[in-house]
Amino acid sequence: MNNFIYYAPTKVYFGKGEHEKVGEIVAGYGFKKVFLHFGGGSVKRSGLLDTVETKLREAGIDLVEFGGAQPNPVISHAREGIALCRREGCDLVLAVGGGSAIDESKVIAVGSQNDADPWEFTTKKKVPEKALPVGVILTLAATGSEMSASAVITNDELGLKRGYNSDFHRPLFSILNPELTYTVPPYQTACGIVDIMMHTLERYMTIPSEAEISDRIAEGLVKTVITAGRAAMANPKDYEARANLMWAGSLSHNDLTGCGRSYMTVSHQIEHELSGMFPEVAHGAGLAVIFPAWMRYTYKHYLSRFTQYAVRVWNCEMNFDHPERTALEGIEKTEEYFRSIGMPLRLSELGIGEDSIHEMAVKCTNYGTRVLKGPIEYGEKEIEEIYRLCL
Amino acid sequence: MNNFIYYAPTKVYFGKGEHEKVGEIVAGYGFKKVFLHFGGGSVKRSGLLDTVETKLREAGIDLVEFGGAQPNPVISHAREGIALCRREGCDLVLAVGGGSAIDESKVIAVGSQNDADPWEFTTKKKVPEKALPVGVILTLAATGSEMSASAVITNDELGLKRGYNSDFHRPLFSILNPELTYTVPPYQTACGIVDIMMHTLERYMTIPSEAEISDRIAEGLVKTVITAGRAAMANPKDYEARANLMWAGSLSHNDLTGCGRSYMTVSHQIEHELSGMFPEVAHGAGLAVIFPAWMRYTYKHYLSRFTQYAVRVWNCEMNFDHPERTALEGIEKTEEYFRSIGMPLRLSELGIGEDSIHEMAVKCTNYGTRVLKGPIEYGEKEIEEIYRLCL
Repeated sequence: MNNFIYYAPTKVYFGKGEHEKVGEIVAGYGFKKVFLHFGGGSVKRSGLLDTVETKLREAGIDLVEFGGAQPNPVISHAREGIALCRREGCDLVLAVGGGSAIDESKVIAVGSQNDADPWEFTTKKKVPEKALPVGVILTLAATGSEMSASAVITNDELGLKRGYNSDFHRPLFSILNPELTYTVPPYQTACGIVDIMMHTLERYMTIPSEAEISDRIAEGLVKTVITAGRAAMANPKDYEARANLMWAGSLSHNDLTGCGRSYMTVSHQIEHELSGMFPEVAHGAGLAVIFPAWMRYTYKHYLSRFTQYAVRVWNCEMNFDHPERTALEGIEKTEEYFRSIGMPLRLSELGIGEDSIHEMAVKCTNYGTRVLKGPIEYGEKEIEEIYRLCL
Repeated sequence: MNNFIYYAPTKVYFGKGEHEKVGEIVAGYGFKKVFLHFGGGSVKRSGLLDTVETKLREAGIDLVEFGGAQPNPVISHAREGIALCRREGCDLVLAVGGGSAIDESKVIAVGSQNDADPWEFTTKKKVPEKALPVGVILTLAATGSEMSASAVITNDELGLKRGYNSDFHRPLFSILNPELTYTVPPYQTACGIVDIMMHTLERYMTIPSEAEISDRIAEGLVKTVITAGRAAMANPKDYEARANLMWAGSLSHNDLTGCGRSYMTVSHQIEHELSGMFPEVAHGAGLAVIFPAWMRYTYKHYLSRFTQYAVRVWNCEMNFDHPERTALEGIEKTEEYFRSIGMPLRLSELGIGEDSIHEMAVKCTNYGTRVLKGPIEYGEKEIEEIYRLCL
């Protein structure tokens, strides 16, 4: 077990009807003016935004609306939000939505309190000194942003999707009501399932480390997501399934499963180039294509972990004489599962062709200035080969 | 999954040498005067206390020493600490030790900032309004108090051991260096192992609830503690074993495994009467006696959970025709394990006889004013029968 710092201070209010407490929660902290941030029309159409605004007003809280966060949020829009937030003198940024709204809220919460352009923080050229607190009402189980230190955003001019971690990004509180996810369409639900699994698996399978507790928790989370995912796809209003997905989503990205180990979110980095260049590609769908390819490219270099994954998560029988067959079986089961929930497994299904591969690989290494680390190192050549594997 | 609130804000610094950062950590928060609280001589003899004081002073922090926390801390001693803490105007209570020092620190941190007698808070007659923050340098993996909302203390006049939960009890930061537990003697290590397992198992096995994520995490934690416990008993300086015990200890009592479920710490309540009346009985040893008796008394009323426990935690084979045999096997494996790490399984081994049973049962129900809840309810009669089972 490596040394680590674990800090996940977000207060979580979980369950049926919990979002109705938003007024008393916000007032309890003493906030006066909320920057209410959301994405598209769904939170309006469902009546959720109305409910939130009513509850806030009833509690004597002032608010400013700022909608329009895109599924892959962009820095140009965040800059508008930053300017508005400053002008209005808000003291809390409240995101109502999924990872897009939450991540953009985090960028706004930080950007509004610092002079530098927000992209400087995202690219780690500068470090923020302060930030507004962030609150969340979650409507989509996927990114884990409701408890994480992460904020990912795309520079629309450059076509680059990047993220950075900061304690300023950890929400003060998050309200998680699984009922709010009943209306999430099947494709988005499936994308969320993949993203949640990947947050755990990236920590579990990338850089060889010894961390038994994190292993066991990771395996438990992924097993739960697999069964809850099937159930939620079959019945969108299965409360227990939606609840398990939601809570697994939060626990998979708040660093709990990273404690004591080294890791790098390799598949995420490789996937970011897809949605950086092709913003219409959903993050989870991109991951469903990349991860199996990464696994097939990598498994012989970390056979013990890939066999452990197959046996413990997928209940494969261990082939002691030929463990690589067990490892492959785990990969195949993963692919079958992704396929069964409607996810793509090939770049061509996402409309991405061979001609984009080289550019994505170059960008992924930040133009040759970084390698991704796993059981082996992934430079431009290796990343290109992985893209090729899933063409 | 029931509705729940999850709030575990403690910042954890985990690993080799982390305690040496205490000066910069405390200074980083802006604290000026530390109430340094510890138990007996071991933290002095080991040189740890010296190191802590040196680091604090180097960082310009003032400090007041208050030692003497007993293994089952007593309210009379806490009252002395409260008076001293007030007189000295400290702004942080720093516990250096195990659960005893930490729990008493929590009682002092709360008591020093409120007028009422501290026992009023422990017995839930009053609710505290404020408290000093608490920091921890952990030297014993057992109670989980370094991340929990719990503080347990004994009223030495009345011979009653009670505890209550409060967010004020959650430490601001905890420094967990497994190397500091290398010198913990075998008996204490074993008591700690039992306490850690019990924190998880009480949530897992008491009140029937559906909470799959919490189940999986619980099973993972207990499996890890079982193997790490064996390893640490065999080699006290096995870093990985000590690290797994320490981190499992924290995660087992910060409410993570309670999320979404109902539970009651039934065996803990029954055990408190032992160490309430017989303060020399170590908490973990008492639990090792009580828990198997509680399991034998209870298992037929929650057969699904006891079979799941046997199969998933102890790798027993499921007997589909006679599941009660599987459940019993899980209980037997637990007893064998406790015995193998040197724990008692009988009250007589702790020097407690039949003559004390009735009084303990009466006190446990708070003189007939409460029942303990599990798959069934436990009143005075049931609790007495459980004590009788382990005579």
